Order: sequence, then structure tokens, then C-alpha cells
Amino acid sequence: MQPITEENITGLAAQRWASAHDPRLAEIMAALVRHLHEFAREVRLTETEWMAAIQWLNRAGQTSDDKREEFILASDVLGLSMLVVQMNHRLDPAATPATVLGPFHIEGSPQLGFGADMSEGLPGTPLYIHGTVRDLGGKPVGGAVLDVWQADAEGVYEAQLDVDEARLRAKYTIREDGSYCIRTITPRGYSIPMDGPVGDLIGRTAISHSRPAHVHFLIDVPGYEPLVTHLFQEGADYLDSDVVFGTKRELIVAFEPREPGPTPDGGTSDRAWAETRYDFVLQPRP
Amino acid sequence: MQPITEENITGLAAQRWASAHDPRLAEIMAALVRHLHEFAREVRLTETEWMAAIQWLNRAGQTSDDKREEFILASDVLGLSMLVVQMNHRLDPAATPATVLGPFHIEGSPQLGFGADMSEGLPGTPLYIHGTVRDLGGKPVGGAVLDVWQADAEGVYEAQLDVDEARLRAKYTIREDGSYCIRTITPRGYSIPMDGPVGDLIGRTAISHSRPAHVHFLIDVPGYEPLVTHLFQEGADYLDSDVVFGTKRELIVAFEPREPGPTPDGGTSDRAWAETRYDFVLQPRP
Repeated sequence: MQPITEENITGLAAQRWASAHDPRLAEIMAALVRHLHEFAREVRLTETEWMAAIQWLNRAGQTSDDKREEFILASDVLGLSMLVVQMNHRLDPAATPATVLGPFHIEGSPQLGFGADMSEGLPGTPLYIHGTVRDLGGKPVGGAVLDVWQADAEGVYEAQLDVDEARLRAKYTIREDGSYCIRTITPRGYSIPMDGPVGDLIGRTAISHSRPAHVHFLIDVPGYEPLVTHLFQEGADYLDSDVVFGTKRELIVAFEPREPGPTPDGGTSDRAWAETRYDFVLQPRP
Repeated sequence: MQPITEENITGLAAQRWASAHDPRLAEIMAALVRHLHEFAREVRLTETEWMAAIQWLNRAGQTSDDKREEFILASDVLGLSMLVVQMNHRLDPAATPATVLGPFHIEGSPQLGFGADMSEGLPGTPLYIHGTVRDLGGKPVGGAVLDVWQADAEGVYEAQLDVDEARLRAKYTIREDGSYCIRTITPRGYSIPMDGPVGDLIGRTAISHSRPAHVHFLIDVPGYEPLVTHLFQEGADYLDSDVVFGTKRELIVAFEPREPGPTPDGGTSDRAWAETRYDFVLQPRP
């Protein structure tokens, strides 16, 4: 029987987990053991701190449900989500850059056509986001669908509310020439949820807990790198201090104010509205 | 605005978390960010794997309740718990060594006197565990209480059952001369719970998911290092492969078989029973 010591336990534990039948799982688990132990050794974690961490993890799991994702939020504010995005999307500089998914995406949004309104009935300044979806060579990407979601004029997502109908989210079909047109309202920047374990931690630091105003996009077309990204409002607060490290200069766009009159969907607005033009550029898969 | 890149994000995130108001929290969080990122970089974590990890964490939190601790179990099987124990209890070699708390401890066990039976009504071989609690110099430790808990003859803990009364757990008061006597039944070795996310992971490896038969002890006396430990049954299965890395040679004791007759509490048994003598040695606090 080999005695377990402070010196040998990391090697023994990593070796055990390297017995996973799937080689990739073996690699991940052995590395996880080593890095987790290195962390605990470096800070010489006390038992009280260890127990606080266990309780924090329990609370994070129990705060999560089908509409709230506390562990995604934790990964976001620790910069892990953005690191994983960067490592997995080393895109051509001419392609639209990726950013974090965030904890508020909901599957199965309703399909809407060119210029349809995903903000129906909600207060706010009408916003038309339009442009094209093309590949690096400028060719329209046929069959593309823009899965779009955003916060409302108060900075609140559907996922944070108890509602039955889709709210500020939709899947927009792109036209044959690559053009799309989304009608919505201007979103507001917001604080991440501060009433859970992630908020408790952030509240014990000088970290700004807000995100600049933005709209989320997911474009997943066969043959192309799937793109998860945002468009951020130029001039918005917190562009410099996004709590989830998601801001990229290329993704900042003007929400141009427009007088009542013709709109990009071919219709007319009798109210003031805002306009954003953005051309998404997808990178073909190798 | 500083662009976030794959190269600079770890430094930026660690720097942010180092803004925690409490210097110890700042140290821990900055180190956590660095080691978490190093892990993700080393294995080049994919987004699918990242999402699987998020879902695993959610399930672990949601599997835990006041009677089940999936994150403690995870920490145990990754060797983290035992590492934390070792780092925080660098005891004199003459003191009783520490081992893991495990996920089955329940607070507030009933207080029992010398030789009282904590297994009343349960089937199994009667087991008397007796000896002394002394300090490194051999002096009896007055006022000590032995918080004891164990699995039953089928390897099941109270924490895994839906019962109202304390079952195989008690706080034994130690007599003035340092002597104690526990009456119980011989525990059985057992598999860790395999129906949760930790079991799912273990099931994908060649790791043995069992623990050798043992009884848990917690002795927390003012002026001494608190001791959390087990006594393991000599000759039990899995002493070499304890899934939580908890076995130590010094903690393996014989459960000596005895014929019906006088027992260490001054009484008599009309059935065959087993006897274990163990002297706990506590280390004074500096």
C-alpha cells in the first residue's frame, strides 16, 4: 500500500483519472486534477475556504434553472468564456469576430421574415438593424438564419422574466441576395444578476458589474464557422469595462437616429427611429 | 479601449479580480483565474466541452441537498480534499493523522456516554471501539468529545436514507482519565453514490468506486488541532484503492473477533462481537 502524502497525491490522482476510457476525457481530467491542485497549493487553501467554495458551488447550481445559468455567468466574469471563444475562433481578421454566448440565450425562437418586428408591443425606440450576411469572398450566404436576442429598454431579458411568449428574440431568415432586416427596439446596458453567488463575489470587489448595450447574434450555417457575436452600441456606457470581457472594437456600431419616414424594410415609421447597418462576414470551414 | 485577445485576457481577468477588497480573496481569485485559464489553454478546451462542464456543474449543484454533497464528493475523488487536509494538518508523526471529512457528516448528533450503543436496533456484528484520547505528552484530553459516524452493515449512511432519528452517529463524551468506549456494529465498505454526475464521470474510467470499511471521527477540542479522521478495518477490501485517497497505514486497525462474554464497557455480550483498541493522540495548537 502506497502511503498518500502531500507530495505524491497530485501525481496519484492525475494518474487515476488518466484511466478514462476516452483519451480526450483522460487528457482533460488529468490536466484538471493537476491545475486544480496547483491552485490549491499556490494559495495554500484552508479548510474553511474549501468549505466556502463547496457551498458557493452548491448555491450556483441551485440558482440555475432552465432560465438562469449561474455557472455560465461565473465562467463569463472569470474571463474563461471569452478565452474559450478566442481559442476556438481564430478567424480571418476580415471575418466578423466572435464573442461570448452569455447566459440568456433561449433555444427555439420564432422564425421571422425580412423586417418583421421582434419587439411587438414593447416600449422603446424602434431600431432597424440591417445589412448582409456574406462569406469572406463577398458571396451571399444562402440559407443563413440569424438567431437574435437582446435585453429590453430596461436592460431585462426574457430569461429573467416569467413570460409565456417569446420576447425580444427571433430567428430571421436571410434573403437570397444575403440581405437581412431586423426590427426591434434599442436595448439598454444592464447589470448582470447580482442576487446570486456570482453577484456576491463581484460585490466584494471593485469590478463594474455592468455590460454595455448590445444585441446578440448566433449564425450557424453548414460549411461555415458558427458565429456567436454581439453588436454593441457606439457611445454606450461600460464599453471599456464590460464585466464579461465581451467587447470588441469591430463590433461597435452606431445606432443612428432617424426622423419619422421611410424605413429599411420598405415601410414607413410615424415615430423617430434608429438605424444600424452591419454586414456579417462568415468564414468558410476548412 | 484595450482590445481583448487570446493572449491578454488571462492577465486582464486576474488583474480585475485582484481588486477584491479583502486581500486574501484577491489572492485566491486572481490565482483561480490564472490556473483555470492555464487548464483551458493546456487542453485547448472546445466550446462543446465547456458546455458539458457547465451542465455537469449544474447537475452537481442540483443533486446536492442537506443530505447529499455532490461537490464534496467531486473534491474527494479528484484528490483535492485529501490535498487540503494534508496541507492544513502537517502534524507531528506521533499524532493521529487526519483524513477526509467525506460527504456524509451530519451536525448535531446525540450525546452518548461511555459504552452506549449508537447502533441500537440495527442488524450487524457488535463492535466495541475503545481506548484513550491523549495529547502528544500522554496527558488525557479533558472535555474531549468524539463525534462518530459510519455506514451500516450494508454500507449505507443515514445521510442516504430518509429517516427521522439519528442512525449510526453520536457524540461520545470522554471520561476524566481520557478513556472512551463506543458501541456500534461493524461497518461495511461501500461504493460512492454512482447515480449522480460524479458517478457518471467515474463510470467512464477504470477507477474503483469503492471505499474500504471504516468509521469516521471528528474531535475538536479547544487548544488542540481539530482532528477529522477514520479508522479502517484491517484486511478490508479496497484499502489499496480508496476512491477518495483517504487511507493511511496508521489508521488501519484490527476488528478482533471475540466470543460471547465480558465487553470493554463492563457489561457482557451473549453474542460474538468484535473489538478495536485505538488511542487517539491530539496535537496541541501552537
